[in-house]
Amino acid sequence: MDETILKEIEAIVGRGNLSTSIEDRICYSYDATNQRFLPEGVIFPGSAEEVASLVRLASRNSIPIVPRGAGSGFTGGSLPVRGGLVVSTERLNRILEVDRENLFCIVEPGVVTGDLQEEVESMGLFYPPDPSSLKFCTIGGNIAECAGGPRGLKYGVTRDYVLGLEVVLPDGEVIRTGGRTLKGVVGYDLTRLFVGSEGTLGFVTRAILRLLPYPEKVLTILALFPDQEGAAGAVSAIISSGILPSALEFIDRECVACVSDYRDMGISGAEAILLIEVDGREGVVEREGAMIEEVCREKGGFDIRKASDRRGRKRLWEARRAISPSLRRLNPHKINEDVVVPRTAIGDLVAGVREIGRRYGIKTACFGHGGDGNIHVNLMIDRRVPGEIERAEEAVKEVFQLTLRLGGTISGEHGIGITKAPFLKMELGRREIDLMRSIKETFDPKGIMNPGKVFPGD
Amino acid sequence: MDETILKEIEAIVGRGNLSTSIEDRICYSYDATNQRFLPEGVIFPGSAEEVASLVRLASRNSIPIVPRGAGSGFTGGSLPVRGGLVVSTERLNRILEVDRENLFCIVEPGVVTGDLQEEVESMGLFYPPDPSSLKFCTIGGNIAECAGGPRGLKYGVTRDYVLGLEVVLPDGEVIRTGGRTLKGVVGYDLTRLFVGSEGTLGFVTRAILRLLPYPEKVLTILALFPDQEGAAGAVSAIISSGILPSALEFIDRECVACVSDYRDMGISGAEAILLIEVDGREGVVEREGAMIEEVCREKGGFDIRKASDRRGRKRLWEARRAISPSLRRLNPHKINEDVVVPRTAIGDLVAGVREIGRRYGIKTACFGHGGDGNIHVNLMIDRRVPGEIERAEEAVKEVFQLTLRLGGTISGEHGIGITKAPFLKMELGRREIDLMRSIKETFDPKGIMNPGKVFPGD
Repeated sequence: MDETILKEIEAIVGRGNLSTSIEDRICYSYDATNQRFLPEGVIFPGSAEEVASLVRLASRNSIPIVPRGAGSGFTGGSLPVRGGLVVSTERLNRILEVDRENLFCIVEPGVVTGDLQEEVESMGLFYPPDPSSLKFCTIGGNIAECAGGPRGLKYGVTRDYVLGLEVVLPDGEVIRTGGRTLKGVVGYDLTRLFVGSEGTLGFVTRAILRLLPYPEKVLTILALFPDQEGAAGAVSAIISSGILPSALEFIDRECVACVSDYRDMGISGAEAILLIEVDGREGVVEREGAMIEEVCREKGGFDIRKASDRRGRKRLWEARRAISPSLRRLNPHKINEDVVVPRTAIGDLVAGVREIGRRYGIKTACFGHGGDGNIHVNLMIDRRVPGEIERAEEAVKEVFQLTLRLGGTISGEHGIGITKAPFLKMELGRREIDLMRSIKETFDPKGIMNPGKVFPGD
Repeated sequence: MDETILKEIEAIVGRGNLSTSIEDRICYSYDATNQRFLPEGVIFPGSAEEVASLVRLASRNSIPIVPRGAGSGFTGGSLPVRGGLVVSTERLNRILEVDRENLFCIVEPGVVTGDLQEEVESMGLFYPPDPSSLKFCTIGGNIAECAGGPRGLKYGVTRDYVLGLEVVLPDGEVIRTGGRTLKGVVGYDLTRLFVGSEGTLGFVTRAILRLLPYPEKVLTILALFPDQEGAAGAVSAIISSGILPSALEFIDRECVACVSDYRDMGISGAEAILLIEVDGREGVVEREGAMIEEVCREKGGFDIRKASDRRGRKRLWEARRAISPSLRRLNPHKINEDVVVPRTAIGDLVAGVREIGRRYGIKTACFGHGGDGNIHVNLMIDRRVPGEIERAEEAVKEVFQLTLRLGGTISGEHGIGITKAPFLKMELGRREIDLMRSIKETFDPKGIMNPGKVFPGD
């Protein structure tokens, strides 16, 4: 990169907040997809004004800007696929305001989601979106991908908690959308257009987030099932009974086997497991817990464990949390697809994935947010085995076809990024994609803001 | 209008579903703003295919298309301000599917909101958005304006219940957005871009709506206060106590006086009233009711009535429902602005409105959704009095300035349409408006879809 431009960048962010060392460039070249693209430099701005100045400079010189939170994305949203500058939000990490009475907070994009949750919880408040990576992922990344999590069923996803945004547009101008109130219908909904746009329309520098009162009580239930049909049936039956659990996680037999192989958690006899959480008022939670237990028993659930204290609940979540690391026992490399189907189709999806895996000779394992039909389909492969990647790619395509046939969507919470871009046309029509492309061109005519994402063949 | 075009329209929708009679054109020339614009014809299509053919025809001939639900809007969204064809959704009124297990329904845009609620309630399900006009307004209109209602505080607004849409674009091509699942992040969020876009980006022909389980129990509480500060303080104190009521309606002393003058409901001693509703599980509702009663008493509430049966609840709502008709006793014409402020600022807003009214010699009355800060500010005028309209317009501008100074927004649920378009610039920056305009141009380059709305000076 041109020395003059580097000098200009340094003048904006200050010495020490720009790096072009190969070590830093490598550190910021990858995300959870394990793909690598080397940026030309990594910048750590300290304010929205600095971001705006940087973007103006980049726009003048047509240099790609790639916003980056924690790099925990599964679809490559933060990868500098066209080179350019990675702009990290690490230093934009302040919680600026928590308004207890009006139930909102104002944060910078680099705030870690889990940190925000702890901070507001200490004030009796609740920020529900809970992606698995919440201990390190950031609000900015959550907004870019519209992150979800187990609580989606009852509480919705990131989109439902973003009231307003401050955004640096691709030409460096700063706009504000939405506001501090729940209601607001002044003009088109730019706020939700930015949410989930994967950093391709602008750089979020501030967000106003909705908060809720923290629930009085939480009860966790782990139920083992002798067959998958029983577990899938219980998911629908629980919802039909009028309960909206705050989590309703489904774990298939492949995951059970992996986790049990990893460490004995007394779950090895199960063909499927549900991990259910209900929250709310004292008294109700227990009553709903009893109702859920009854439904699970009716559907064949044979070992039902409950806990409402923090330690006991953590123990029940252990099996669920152990899945991701333990899957590596099947094979070293994981392809993780976050498809969604209507919840009554979970059984068909899981059975179908198993059959696809068998046909392609690929090990599969399914788990995830059963309550909202958002199942994480994992293809465990060994990239070193000749032909394995190619077979896996074909298998993924079939998983997507099956998902769409079941009335679902190919991405529930990970976004499109680069890994799903080739499949976009399977779900969306030509015209829908054209409309999205023209929105992109309207916002970013020079194509400098996170280029090469979302759209196929870009 | 050209005879050939009328013949083509008749060929599309069939004889009897197109009218150019002056009687029909007058009937479809107005909405709740009481402004009138005569269309050149009124069409009643019976299917999405017919709508698509109509729009293609209109696009070829550059004829404005104005989608119309029940015409109950407060900002002129359904008025044919540039002439052209009013396309009514009256015949597109089928509930196509209610999926109890997956908690969604699929409806046509002409379904009346209240009818949908009754239908799903009979199946134990709940469609929360509840604009005051729910007995006649339609889902299509609700989507166009992103309608809210008292339940917004706990349950959100229309935007939060639209999972997917079928839309006829301004050139007649049909697209589908979103899907049947809660989660979905495939490309930009076109669904929510259409919600609240006031029919300016396309004609919604089908919607997939999220449903919830119907709450087990509902408790209504009416609390009278000796001063406004007490009532406003109670609103914040209730939320701070960790309760999210399903309604938290605020009524000021001017409304109390009007209603009492209209009919004795035993509320005449109050300077302000709160009408509070909590819903959920048996037992909890009673407990939350007791907590609310305590808070109200602490803040000076002196006459607190409760009911949980349908008849008793209806009686408590009577005072609230009587406000709109009774306000006409102050003056024959109403200007109703649905501003929103952070809920802690309600007291300042109501006091400020009173002061503005005094200064301009205009009678004012405030009531509405105190819980989410969405207060309906009513300016009661007599258009026949010389200068009154002009003074009222100045007063409205000051109400908006006050709202924005208090950190709020000029429209919570009525949209911009034509009545608020001149004020758009007070809330949004030039660039935000430019972005919205360019989205409009991208979707509708010929400018035929509901022209003359949202943007100032159009």
